[in-house]
Amino acid sequence: MKEVIVISGSIYGNLFRISTWGESHGKGIGVVVDGCPSGLQLNEEMIQAYLNRRRPGQNKYATERQEKDLVEILSGVFEGKTTGTPISMVVMNTNQRSVDYSDIANYYRPGHADYTFDEKYGFRDYRGGGRSSGRETTARVAAGAIAKSILSQLGIEVCAYTKSIGDITIDYKNCNKENILTSPVAMPDLTASLLATELLEKRMEESDSTGGVIECIVTGMPAGIGEPVFEKLDANLGKAILSIGAIKGIEFGSGFNAALSSGSKNNDNFQINEDGKVIKLSNHAGGILGGISDGSEIIFRAAVKPTSSIAKAQKTITKTGENIEVSIHGRHDPIIVPRAVVVVESMTAITLVDMLFMNMTAQMDHIKKIYKK
Amino acid sequence: MKEVIVISGSIYGNLFRISTWGESHGKGIGVVVDGCPSGLQLNEEMIQAYLNRRRPGQNKYATERQEKDLVEILSGVFEGKTTGTPISMVVMNTNQRSVDYSDIANYYRPGHADYTFDEKYGFRDYRGGGRSSGRETTARVAAGAIAKSILSQLGIEVCAYTKSIGDITIDYKNCNKENILTSPVAMPDLTASLLATELLEKRMEESDSTGGVIECIVTGMPAGIGEPVFEKLDANLGKAILSIGAIKGIEFGSGFNAALSSGSKNNDNFQINEDGKVIKLSNHAGGILGGISDGSEIIFRAAVKPTSSIAKAQKTITKTGENIEVSIHGRHDPIIVPRAVVVVESMTAITLVDMLFMNMTAQMDHIKKIYKK
Amino acid sequence: MKEVIVISGSIYGNLFRISTWGESHGKGIGVVVDGCPSGLQLNEEMIQAYLNRRRPGQNKYATERQEKDLVEILSGVFEGKTTGTPISMVVMNTNQRSVDYSDIANYYRPGHADYTFDEKYGFRDYRGGGRSSGRETTARVAAGAIAKSILSQLGIEVCAYTKSIGDITIDYKNCNKENILTSPVAMPDLTASLLATELLEKRMEESDSTGGVIECIVTGMPAGIGEPVFEKLDANLGKAILSIGAIKGIEFGSGFNAALSSGSKNNDNFQINEDGKVIKLSNHAGGILGGISDGSEIIFRAAVKPTSSIAKAQKTITKTGENIEVSIHGRHDPIIVPRAVVVVESMTAITLVDMLFMNMTAQMDHIKKIYKK
Amino acid sequence: MKEVIVISGSIYGNLFRISTWGESHGKGIGVVVDGCPSGLQLNEEMIQAYLNRRRPGQNKYATERQEKDLVEILSGVFEGKTTGTPISMVVMNTNQRSVDYSDIANYYRPGHADYTFDEKYGFRDYRGGGRSSGRETTARVAAGAIAKSILSQLGIEVCAYTKSIGDITIDYKNCNKENILTSPVAMPDLTASLLATELLEKRMEESDSTGGVIECIVTGMPAGIGEPVFEKLDANLGKAILSIGAIKGIEFGSGFNAALSSGSKNNDNFQINEDGKVIKLSNHAGGILGGISDGSEIIFRAAVKPTSSIAKAQKTITKTGENIEVSIHGRHDPIIVPRAVVVVESMTAITLVDMLFMNMTAQMDHIKKIYKK
Repeated sequence: MKEVIVISGSIYGNLFRISTWGESHGKGIGVVVDGCPSGLQLNEEMIQAYLNRRRPGQNKYATERQEKDLVEILSGVFEGKTTGTPISMVVMNTNQRSVDYSDIANYYRPGHADYTFDEKYGFRDYRGGGRSSGRETTARVAAGAIAKSILSQLGIEVCAYTKSIGDITIDYKNCNKENILTSPVAMPDLTASLLATELLEKRMEESDSTGGVIECIVTGMPAGIGEPVFEKLDANLGKAILSIGAIKGIEFGSGFNAALSSGSKNNDNFQINEDGKVIKLSNHAGGILGGISDGSEIIFRAAVKPTSSIAKAQKTITKTGENIEVSIHGRHDPIIVPRAVVVVESMTAITLVDMLFMNMTAQMDHIKKIYKK
Repeated sequence: MKEVIVISGSIYGNLFRISTWGESHGKGIGVVVDGCPSGLQLNEEMIQAYLNRRRPGQNKYATERQEKDLVEILSGVFEGKTTGTPISMVVMNTNQRSVDYSDIANYYRPGHADYTFDEKYGFRDYRGGGRSSGRETTARVAAGAIAKSILSQLGIEVCAYTKSIGDITIDYKNCNKENILTSPVAMPDLTASLLATELLEKRMEESDSTGGVIECIVTGMPAGIGEPVFEKLDANLGKAILSIGAIKGIEFGSGFNAALSSGSKNNDNFQINEDGKVIKLSNHAGGILGGISDGSEIIFRAAVKPTSSIAKAQKTITKTGENIEVSIHGRHDPIIVPRAVVVVESMTAITLVDMLFMNMTAQMDHIKKIYKK
Repeated sequence: MKEVIVISGSIYGNLFRISTWGESHGKGIGVVVDGCPSGLQLNEEMIQAYLNRRRPGQNKYATERQEKDLVEILSGVFEGKTTGTPISMVVMNTNQRSVDYSDIANYYRPGHADYTFDEKYGFRDYRGGGRSSGRETTARVAAGAIAKSILSQLGIEVCAYTKSIGDITIDYKNCNKENILTSPVAMPDLTASLLATELLEKRMEESDSTGGVIECIVTGMPAGIGEPVFEKLDANLGKAILSIGAIKGIEFGSGFNAALSSGSKNNDNFQINEDGKVIKLSNHAGGILGGISDGSEIIFRAAVKPTSSIAKAQKTITKTGENIEVSIHGRHDPIIVPRAVVVVESMTAITLVDMLFMNMTAQMDHIKKIYKK
Repeated sequence: MKEVIVISGSIYGNLFRISTWGESHGKGIGVVVDGCPSGLQLNEEMIQAYLNRRRPGQNKYATERQEKDLVEILSGVFEGKTTGTPISMVVMNTNQRSVDYSDIANYYRPGHADYTFDEKYGFRDYRGGGRSSGRETTARVAAGAIAKSILSQLGIEVCAYTKSIGDITIDYKNCNKENILTSPVAMPDLTASLLATELLEKRMEESDSTGGVIECIVTGMPAGIGEPVFEKLDANLGKAILSIGAIKGIEFGSGFNAALSSGSKNNDNFQINEDGKVIKLSNHAGGILGGISDGSEIIFRAAVKPTSSIAKAQKTITKTGENIEVSIHGRHDPIIVPRAVVVVESMTAITLVDMLFMNMTAQMDHIKKIYKK
């Protein structure tokens, strides 16, 4: 180990800020939310509903580890409502079965952060990835539940689902939560969902894994959120989503297809409809023009790589520099996508709330109001 | 106009920070760079070389506006070397020909930020996009030249080029700057470059435009840069690149193709080569594992939408709510990609320098050294 | 109550950051420390020792509330050493005796934040001050214990003590911790300490309170910490100390006396001593020149106002706008100073660690080292 | 010189941010203001009026250096009004007479940052202090002029003046700008002002200098600005003022005298006056309770040390480690206070604007309004 290291960068946001903590194999995982407005209805059940969506052990496509992930709110809520003060939430770890990790400790798993952790810090917490463990996202989801609740007050809904698993892709326009929750892989087209589970069975038999794409749709978003230079709405959403492990790309609206298109096809034409409302005749922009929301649906997709831990033999090296072949056994999902769906929703919601708050600076008349009261 | 507005968010970075200012039709454009180390060789010629790469009027695929874009350094440099103090640079505007913008002032150009500006601020600077003008990137490129110079000292090179224009895509592995600069469209495969210019001619005849993809390759990047939670290297690069206008997506390594792949194919296997060095047998990860650089090439691609301003007729609405059809005439590139290449390089370089600086917090032994001296 | 409020601003620091949470009458109080280096010895006993210094109920000059204030570490420590990841600490509340606060709820206590809270938020948590309660500093002290431990590794000691209570002032040059802890009022001159307790007895009899001054001395501080423009060492310490409730002023070195002095007397002359070391013949500057530490002792004093809650009759107003007279009974210290001493030490230590980390950006050669390894 | 250094920390503020640049002996000095609302009347004359107040060469108590300090606005203003975009301002240097600084280069001036710069950076810009030169404050005053203009729109006035020079202290309650500007030492009691100039004459004859105190009064400040934990109003003002060179202390309201007082005397009692308005019967708190403005005048005092550069002989050391005696000749004010008055006003105004903007996050109903429009 290097003499001393710092694994920092666990605080996210500007005016609505979250500070996450905890390790996969420590006492628990938690988050402090600074900047949440008062008067929001909030209780443990509401948070729990979101946590359950990313909880392991829900079905055979998710790791078998049986972790209840029960959240406790320690501050910031009084008589079922937020008070405007920091909200501290904790999920204590209950299932830390003592596995023999000595194997993993000695070599670098392909596709994992093992090698980069060792290069950066001179050591790593081989017992489950430490801060780069997927378990860290528990804290993000707990904070995301609060952010979604704020957005909901404003009529804004964030909805993500599995757009594709391997080459099975769905074309889904209607964010029907029910079907998303019914599907074991969060794929609301239930026929495709069935095909997808068959694909996963096949991959599991092959001791292999698969990737996929998550689509996220934000409805009810007002026009005008985002700043035109560095603090573009898409730039900040991009950072938020790419900060989730295993995500390798993000595209807004037509995304990479826009690169193949022409201006005349890709531009969304404006129109006044019969009700006198401004509409766009298409939404290739994904709801963002010049970094600012345009009032239509915000749509983006995130590419998720296949689970790195596979039982199939792979070449790698030991810490001491030998070439070896490894098969990684243990509790591993054949796909990351379904459990990452709620994490994408959470990071999206947290970022939108933060940007809504930042946007208020554009409103000097508001200051005047404060003064005159 | 709303009573009062603020167009903020013009400062970027944490420890290496840039503060950009200026409008397309004001006195000039500029940037202050805070946090640049001393001792770097720096003069106006070095900055100018980068500015020239994004300058308009270089050939017929770039707008005809003849702007020399001459940079002046106002502080932070003494006898050809940086002093460690803030570096202020300015490019005075010289070509503000008084065009009749009254047309544009009255309607919303499809694909532009006209509508979102009006919704957000209640007004817009129709004379050229104001702060959301491509001209703002002049300041980023000037700062990027400094960042690239710092990286160069560390043996790190950032190289971007046109990967595709419309459906003409090249497979380029060798970042040969010469060919990139030779091609009028920054496409280093000169045969493909010729085809691409033919496509552009065609689109121009059709009064239309096209999109494309920029690929960026970072060589010489040490392993260990990036933090494992929110401050992942790919998350920060994602924000940097998506903060450039017209960019609709970014993917690292295999990116969206990883979603179609299996773990056994997508994982990059490690190997000790004959020289005893750690290598990866592939680079699907694009040089980043768990948000931390792994020492191999960092590779990402950015999708650029077609130029929004086209002469072809489009439907849109006036500010007063009438449906009309417009043809946008004036000085407009048929493609954004070639001039955006150096902007991508710049934002990448600025972000890498900032993250290299942030990384230093991981090194407590360094503090001890300071103390003991 | 206003419809919705946010009580934000509970995160402090740049690279070494603390995020505090909790209310006086909620489940508990806590803090997350982001950016603490690994390898530090840390256990609950070490933190507890600091918490005990600000704990209520220690003697008759501190409120009688019997709160054990037992800290629990939830993350970031493994086998007695920090791991470099966020450290989450919690102190559960145990003594929330249900007092009748209905009185206080109806009027504004002079000297308290009651009125400003009501004006800002339209409501207040009258059960003990909410986030502006002195109890919030528990979290700062827990974080301060960690910061002091880091500084200790670097040979830097932060020592604060009671310089004066009312008009009893001591001239103390030797930061002998033992005497500070022996004195019930943290005044290391034990003769003066006795006089001070007599003064406190008198004030208690009069149903009144008194103020005082805390002096803080930092020894072992290397020269060179602090930035010359906005991020001056004294500027940041000033913010840190003034963020503690009841502190009304801060002065460095000769402070306000420097205003009465002449340049020839106030300038600290430099000298090479017999050992060839640079010394200053005086320390009117308090160890900081131009915002940067000069290697000598850092000395500052903070003025603490008298406890606002007194039993003596005072004029005030009710929420409904009537002029009344009130006597505030309950558990209140006749002086704030002694318990604030460890809070001053904590905020100083946290700020020094943060600035030591920021300082590292001055060291580009370090980056080169990273690269070359 | 150390291999590479960074002199960073030249950006101040959160939502209203200023980025200063320039050296005493470079091409010029400037500032970029990010986050200024649109619609403010602004022209060079308005800025110039403030700059003239700190300009050297106004009378014999200010350095003789004849610098016109003419400001030019480069962006963010259109037809005499701000546009909401970043405002770039520059003051070109005109009087860089080539003085022989070789002397100063070889030794450390007592009271200056010479020694700490050398210790921190391994070198210093001996030609006038570089970034720690008083000349850097030119940029702060230019930005402060804008901040004061914003405050003025809200009915908030910031007024600073010389409270004392040496032992000549005035008791001034009425911030009459006219008298402040009439006095050559910014001391509005003109009798005392005369005595003060006599004291300065005496000190000049003795080749010595003197210190003093600046008092700053903010009128029209609404209640409710400031956050109750780390972002207290007094904490942020403290940092702002202590970031000005030569300032050694700050106290709010009764300040250090509060430490000598009792609760019954120091508490400001509330009263409803005849007009039904809430008043305080005293203002020992200086207008801030619990870190939040209470609607009364904000009052603080800053201690300014005597000018360090004096012709009187002082002991010091050379860079090569010899003990010498020096007399510092050249253009030096016998007192810093009068020219620092407008700098105090500027930093106060900038901080108040920033905190007013931050305060807006407390107003969630505002978001709803945005959404519903």
